[in-house]
Amino acid sequence: MPYIETNNSIPGIRGLMQFRPDAALALNKLAQVVLADDASLSKSERELIATFVSAGNECKFCMTSHAAIVSHLPEFGDDVISAVRNDYRSAPISDKLKALLNIADKVRVSGRNVSESDIEQARQQGASDMDIHDTVLIAAMFCMMNRYVDGLGATTPDDPAFYAIVGKQRAEEGYLTKSVLVKD
Amino acid sequence: MPYIETNNSIPGIRGLMQFRPDAALALNKLAQVVLADDASLSKSERELIATFVSAGNECKFCMTSHAAIVSHLPEFGDDVISAVRNDYRSAPISDKLKALLNIADKVRVSGRNVSESDIEQARQQGASDMDIHDTVLIAAMFCMMNRYVDGLGATTPDDPAFYAIVGKQRAEEGYLTKSVLVKD
Repeated sequence: MPYIETNNSIPGIRGLMQFRPDAALALNKLAQVVLADDASLSKSERELIATFVSAGNECKFCMTSHAAIVSHLPEFGDDVISAVRNDYRSAPISDKLKALLNIADKVRVSGRNVSESDIEQARQQGASDMDIHDTVLIAAMFCMMNRYVDGLGATTPDDPAFYAIVGKQRAEEGYLTKSVLVKD
Repeated sequence: MPYIETNNSIPGIRGLMQFRPDAALALNKLAQVVLADDASLSKSERELIATFVSAGNECKFCMTSHAAIVSHLPEFGDDVISAVRNDYRSAPISDKLKALLNIADKVRVSGRNVSESDIEQARQQGASDMDIHDTVLIAAMFCMMNRYVDGLGATTPDDPAFYAIVGKQRAEEGYLTKSVLVKD
């Protein structure tokens, strides 16, 4: 049960969003642009960064939801997702993605922890300025989403079936469909 | 100079926003809803929470900008803003706002740090569920904004005149006017 009376029994961030529909729309528009619309990084890469940051912040709801989205997208199987969560440096992913996850991990703790050499290292592995921009923004955004979810004590289901449904919906529909937005 | 080539010389978050206009629009819509539109907390209270969280995260650009916005709004003078930044518990503000700043400070470190008793303490001082919701979301949002600004090394002006102009504009116009959004 969330700390506030949301007048609904919807788990996770969606239950909170029903409480403040105008904020919900703004948050979902941001998620759509940053995670689901076309960008220089693939959807799988961007959702993997979201999963990685949420794992670092120990936000079970976001971590499990976004891992399920990655799992429903091409590119990374559950074994790779687990490997990234355990130790991205030894995970079977590109050196470019490792350099971006290094930046994301710095941002997760504090934006002030990112150094010129972190950026340079990513560039040397082929990261573009847009890749770097989006990595920082996604990491920052999940520092918000994780805190919104856990700071209000959102209901976090244990049932893997819940996340499988959410993962499939977001992977296929993005963040601005009826299953996400507030019901009338 | 930011870490990425933004192709503009605009300081702070606006310079970054020019680089990714679709993300900029989503971020500004969120700021408009959460900070500038009518809500149960006053604009001054919400901008003060934003200032307080940015100070805790040592994001000079956001802290100084939002302090300037508070300063241009009614309710809190520069002495109160300084007192809140130094030690909100002894600042000349209401007990309700102190209880909300306590929650904001917990959220700033981790959403998981908020407890039932933090929420209960705010309720006892008269905070509504909407006040609590918005406090958590504003604190979470500035954990994003601060990391976006510092993680990309946004240019942070030293000149107080810069922040005085920004503070006046945001206090009077909100976050969705021409002076904020990306230029054609």
